[in-house]
Amino acid sequence: MSLAAEAAKEQPLPNTLKAALTELLGDRFTTATSVREHHGKGEAYHTAALPDGVAYANSTEEAAAVVKACAGHGIPVIPYGTGTALEGHTLALRGGITLDLSGMDQVIRVSPEDMDCTVQAGVTRNQLNEYLRDTGLFFPVDPGADASLGGMAATRASGTTTVRYGAMRENVLALTVVLADGRVIQTARRARKSAAGYDLTRLFVGSEGTLGVITEVTLRLYGIPEATRAAVCSFPDLEAAVNTVITVVQCGIPIARCELLDKTGMKMICDYGKLDEYTIGDTLFMEFHGSEAGVAEQAEMVQAIAADYGAGDFKWATKLEDRNKLWEARHNGHYAILATAKPDQHVMATDVCVPVSRLAECIMETKADIEACGLVSPFIGHAGDGNFHMSIIANYDDAAENKLAHDIHDRLVHRAQDMEGTCTGEHGIGSGKIDYLEEELGAAVEVMRAVKRALDPGDIMNPGKMLRL
Amino acid sequence: MSLAAEAAKEQPLPNTLKAALTELLGDRFTTATSVREHHGKGEAYHTAALPDGVAYANSTEEAAAVVKACAGHGIPVIPYGTGTALEGHTLALRGGITLDLSGMDQVIRVSPEDMDCTVQAGVTRNQLNEYLRDTGLFFPVDPGADASLGGMAATRASGTTTVRYGAMRENVLALTVVLADGRVIQTARRARKSAAGYDLTRLFVGSEGTLGVITEVTLRLYGIPEATRAAVCSFPDLEAAVNTVITVVQCGIPIARCELLDKTGMKMICDYGKLDEYTIGDTLFMEFHGSEAGVAEQAEMVQAIAADYGAGDFKWATKLEDRNKLWEARHNGHYAILATAKPDQHVMATDVCVPVSRLAECIMETKADIEACGLVSPFIGHAGDGNFHMSIIANYDDAAENKLAHDIHDRLVHRAQDMEGTCTGEHGIGSGKIDYLEEELGAAVEVMRAVKRALDPGDIMNPGKMLRL
Repeated sequence: MSLAAEAAKEQPLPNTLKAALTELLGDRFTTATSVREHHGKGEAYHTAALPDGVAYANSTEEAAAVVKACAGHGIPVIPYGTGTALEGHTLALRGGITLDLSGMDQVIRVSPEDMDCTVQAGVTRNQLNEYLRDTGLFFPVDPGADASLGGMAATRASGTTTVRYGAMRENVLALTVVLADGRVIQTARRARKSAAGYDLTRLFVGSEGTLGVITEVTLRLYGIPEATRAAVCSFPDLEAAVNTVITVVQCGIPIARCELLDKTGMKMICDYGKLDEYTIGDTLFMEFHGSEAGVAEQAEMVQAIAADYGAGDFKWATKLEDRNKLWEARHNGHYAILATAKPDQHVMATDVCVPVSRLAECIMETKADIEACGLVSPFIGHAGDGNFHMSIIANYDDAAENKLAHDIHDRLVHRAQDMEGTCTGEHGIGSGKIDYLEEELGAAVEVMRAVKRALDPGDIMNPGKMLRL
Repeated sequence: MSLAAEAAKEQPLPNTLKAALTELLGDRFTTATSVREHHGKGEAYHTAALPDGVAYANSTEEAAAVVKACAGHGIPVIPYGTGTALEGHTLALRGGITLDLSGMDQVIRVSPEDMDCTVQAGVTRNQLNEYLRDTGLFFPVDPGADASLGGMAATRASGTTTVRYGAMRENVLALTVVLADGRVIQTARRARKSAAGYDLTRLFVGSEGTLGVITEVTLRLYGIPEATRAAVCSFPDLEAAVNTVITVVQCGIPIARCELLDKTGMKMICDYGKLDEYTIGDTLFMEFHGSEAGVAEQAEMVQAIAADYGAGDFKWATKLEDRNKLWEARHNGHYAILATAKPDQHVMATDVCVPVSRLAECIMETKADIEACGLVSPFIGHAGDGNFHMSIIANYDDAAENKLAHDIHDRLVHRAQDMEGTCTGEHGIGSGKIDYLEEELGAAVEVMRAVKRALDPGDIMNPGKMLRL
């Protein structure tokens, strides 16, 4: 911890800072307990850590002024979008000011002919797609929550369509960023590709607010496909489902979505989403995008592959409302799992990502591990990417059960890393996986530290996340 | 220029360094003039700048030992693959040691089931595809030259297939990098996606050897499509050709290649590549990948769009040998242009990239500019990405003509930047475009400098390139 951060922890907000923020934002700066409580906890199992104040910025200029004021006092700044991160990213571990960007909700520009747009950081993915509805374009990246696009960029989010359209890494063209001293930069121009200088766009994508505050995001858009069909298919076991996915990807079939749900996860999602027409078993949710003929061809090929692995019939959701219901249920996976927790239980939502050839093995070993321990976790995954989620439901106030759950989690991460995989495919490091990052990349983490120190020498940007300095 | 670099420029290599490199590499370290001359010039118009010595490394360990030895003496290190960069990237502007990685030519691993591989940095794109031939897989990124994959990563290369498969940015999964002090890091694991820490992979992709030496590259691979068809089509004018491309991209047709050649460029390429069957006019070279039915459908749609813009008939190259001849001719574009230069002429090869909606306007204005000046340049472009090349043929020893050519170039870059584009889509900054980078990204360049200083405090890694410190 830097000296400035140490100092900040031990003393409340300086009066001069409070006065400056009040002058800047009026009642959009507050130290009210309820607001601080709302901002100081994540959606997952992490212990709450409240900021000393919350500042609501409505523009890049305001965000820059807040950061500059905090920098002058060595006070931490925690950027905040919708608060839906799962690894404790928004906890104010060392107090300071949470900078809430939800008021930055304007779509600044859409260029249909270039298929791109620029939005303020607080615009959520659903808001953007709603806005785009009349243009024939859409933005594909879809983590479960209706997260803000700034937050999605900051955590390098991905989702069900990443197998076809890529993650935030591939779909952010440029960012406006407030640096740790309040300066504002634009990371790139709007061209589709560039070889001009270091790739600052991708340095900030996934930096989890530790290098600066993302205030505007320029995004690639895609044409809404001429035809879309979704299907649900049940398999004799998880391995058959995973092997189907591997074969589909290897055959180069451009499947748009390919989601794996084990029997436990399928039951939770169907119960919560009121999907009563499907078999409760190890399942794939799929979607095909393309021309009418293209979609028919893809569907036929995938059905043939699935049949080879003993799959049941495909249940088709062709109508828009049926598809929406299906994917809403999938996107609500985390909430469906939370809904099954007893009052004394919490959910540890984690994810890993492995080379796809090791996916079945990684899931099966982990499933055996959790069953042997007598705990419950559904397995839900973006199988085409080799990425899956485990959500361990346990009483984390019970020391023994808490240890059991954390040991399972620990073995999962090490299993994935031993398979040349990563400790997180999409949730990020946050405060929950700092030690795993060190184990995963060793000396490379020292390079990350050097970058962090260079861009945030006072360690005020979301301190305590991602790296131990 | 740092003090260490100043010192290095003024004195020859220290004897202790020479002795250390000789002990390490034997006759793979040399100060022979012919070898230094070979390494000290680019393929373009830049003035040669020789290194004081050339070290050939055959492994990451050797490369690390060379860098460590140079770092100990504050001597510059210039990484070198095939020497085909176009912006003076390999010039030894401050002397030092050129680290030639061409001996690192081993394919380390191919995992067909994960569709990825790891290669040493000196493996060229053609070598890799030759190696992959029996696996049914290929690596798509294809700059004109048969460049090394390490060099392609270092310059964030792209090519004719980027519109469909992405550039190096999208296709590098992980890198092994020797840092400026000789430490070796692995930037990421082999998983398809990861949210673990800063995206060091993409920080080093496109860093042009200024942050470290890339010694191994892990790459995404793709299945060779079931069907491939290529076509050449002539248009009434350049604008019609560009508008066809824009419409194709907007319709979401997954065209695999879509190359624009103006009449001048078409003539040069056909003459050099002995393609005598095509009309010499403003032209698109296209390729379609997919299933038999998919390719037929794509081709039909593109033909209909082209016809709307007054195009002539498509000439199909369906046979593999005809397609190879076509794309070899296209890839040899730079050499075709060089072949038309008179003995006192050189070629300034440059590229810019703009939002695709501005592409026609940008090319037409630039064409008018060069014609008004009485110079010659073909226009060849990766039109689907909004990226095009201009190769100004001129007598650069004639002061007036030199100024004329540079002024045209200057206006081109500013025109592209005024259209929200970038000063380089794929060639990079090197030593030729340093000032343009500053104009393009302003304060963001200061962030790049901070990163450079943090990772290479002695400024020994390819000094004088990309940034003015």
